[in-house]
Amino acid sequence: MALTVIGSVALDSVETPFGKRKDVLGGSATYASLSASFFTPVNLISVVGSDFEEKHIKMFTKKKINTAGLERKKGKTFRWKARYHYDLNYAETISTHLNVFEGFRPGIPPCVKEKDNLLLANIDPELQSWIFRQIKPRGLVACDTMNLWITHKKKALLKLLKKVDLLLLNDAEARQLSGEKNLIEAAKYISSKGTRMVVIKKGEHGALFFCGKLHFIVPAYLLETITDPTGAGDTFAGGMIGYLSGKKKITDSVLRKALVYGSILASFTVERFSVEGLLRTTPKRLKDRYNHFERLTRF
Amino acid sequence: MALTVIGSVALDSVETPFGKRKDVLGGSATYASLSASFFTPVNLISVVGSDFEEKHIKMFTKKKINTAGLERKKGKTFRWKARYHYDLNYAETISTHLNVFEGFRPGIPPCVKEKDNLLLANIDPELQSWIFRQIKPRGLVACDTMNLWITHKKKALLKLLKKVDLLLLNDAEARQLSGEKNLIEAAKYISSKGTRMVVIKKGEHGALFFCGKLHFIVPAYLLETITDPTGAGDTFAGGMIGYLSGKKKITDSVLRKALVYGSILASFTVERFSVEGLLRTTPKRLKDRYNHFERLTRF
Repeated sequence: MALTVIGSVALDSVETPFGKRKDVLGGSATYASLSASFFTPVNLISVVGSDFEEKHIKMFTKKKINTAGLERKKGKTFRWKARYHYDLNYAETISTHLNVFEGFRPGIPPCVKEKDNLLLANIDPELQSWIFRQIKPRGLVACDTMNLWITHKKKALLKLLKKVDLLLLNDAEARQLSGEKNLIEAAKYISSKGTRMVVIKKGEHGALFFCGKLHFIVPAYLLETITDPTGAGDTFAGGMIGYLSGKKKITDSVLRKALVYGSILASFTVERFSVEGLLRTTPKRLKDRYNHFERLTRF
Repeated sequence: MALTVIGSVALDSVETPFGKRKDVLGGSATYASLSASFFTPVNLISVVGSDFEEKHIKMFTKKKINTAGLERKKGKTFRWKARYHYDLNYAETISTHLNVFEGFRPGIPPCVKEKDNLLLANIDPELQSWIFRQIKPRGLVACDTMNLWITHKKKALLKLLKKVDLLLLNDAEARQLSGEKNLIEAAKYISSKGTRMVVIKKGEHGALFFCGKLHFIVPAYLLETITDPTGAGDTFAGGMIGYLSGKKKITDSVLRKALVYGSILASFTVERFSVEGLLRTTPKRLKDRYNHFERLTRF
């Protein structure tokens, strides 16, 4: 089944202990679309400015990501500037310029169907809700979020949770949203707000999945090189929901594999700056790392 | 094969956000012996003072832990006082009184054989080395350590590492000992010092195993209740080495299961204060949790 991804397409300037990059391709929808494209056709909905280079659009097209819903507006592309210190779990945001994203309410192109799955990648929950109302999706609906929205748009986020099937957020955010220190309790609280499935991402420590009494733990792939964690969570979300979209039926086993693929795709992202890691990933390299991960974790 | 465990037997006074206990049974050799006793006969070598209650000795005996090597000296038992805040990964030590442990050089009872496996539970590496020289072990030798010894007795610890087959330490300690931020690099450094196998414990995030090119990742069991993390690492070490000691041959598969059992036994320890969690654990409850863990992690 096709997957619609709505979120940001951005130009990031990032500094980590291992180097820096200026105005490189980023944004939640960018990482999520590229990651999902390994498994299913993707329709990307977002907006960029007149400064957005054609080569990025070509790259999406080459990856079979439909950009009919990628609006080009006069003005500058969304920009995010951040710095990571040795603890790569935390980004210090230096600046965020919404630019063309300010008040953005996208048109929905005809290629986006109600029956498709929908990934509301990390972006303002009011925009996520708006998109939801436009599309009236009948497929699986997943939502990714972050601390910024829990702090400033909690009410909108909680309202949205009643409509989505799956919420993805990190451990600190799950604690912040629920007020619960224990992650099982946090997941229970979030489920009680209407979201059947909850994925708690733990960065270099993997991820947890909760759906009623079904729990699942997936560690992260062990890496020798971590260069830039930007986009890891978005890649995880895209990989997981992309994998689910590529399957006819969502079973227990398919859900588990989807989490593992999300985790492994994120491991490619963090090895390099921007989307370089994902762009170097081939289906064969992905399958090889999946097989290696199996050997790392089987007992 | 029988397992000799040398380490501390202590009386701990611990405060966590969930309660406090005064002068309860603790110590690295206590947790490690109890944990190992699920799989193999254990000879405990340690020292206690005249204030050590007979009921604890009886408890060891009931668990088939041979206390012939548990010396009773005039004076006070080793005491440790600590406080945990909401981040249960870090204990704030309020006081450590070595008491009878000061300069302790134990006699080795005849029940301890050269051919047995040996676990040098967390204690001064000079004492660990001394024991090693007394026993001249021919079985598997594992060593657990902590930041205190890396800071103050690094030279003695590095010397000891040439003789042991397996070192256990936590992630912060692996980074401290190696000077490497990345845990794969840290394990490589430690192996280069002579220890063939390295286990890096990550608390609530599980553990990593390294032996040459063989890596293995085990997540921690998901718990709703964490009351007191004291002894989790010691329990892990005892469970892992105990399991290995109970097997005729150490294969890849046996090593993996040993790590999982270490992790699961540690989950019982942290659910309650002192050794209460371990004492409530039956072989059936252990096996049930092992089976549940399989369902939590299989994909």
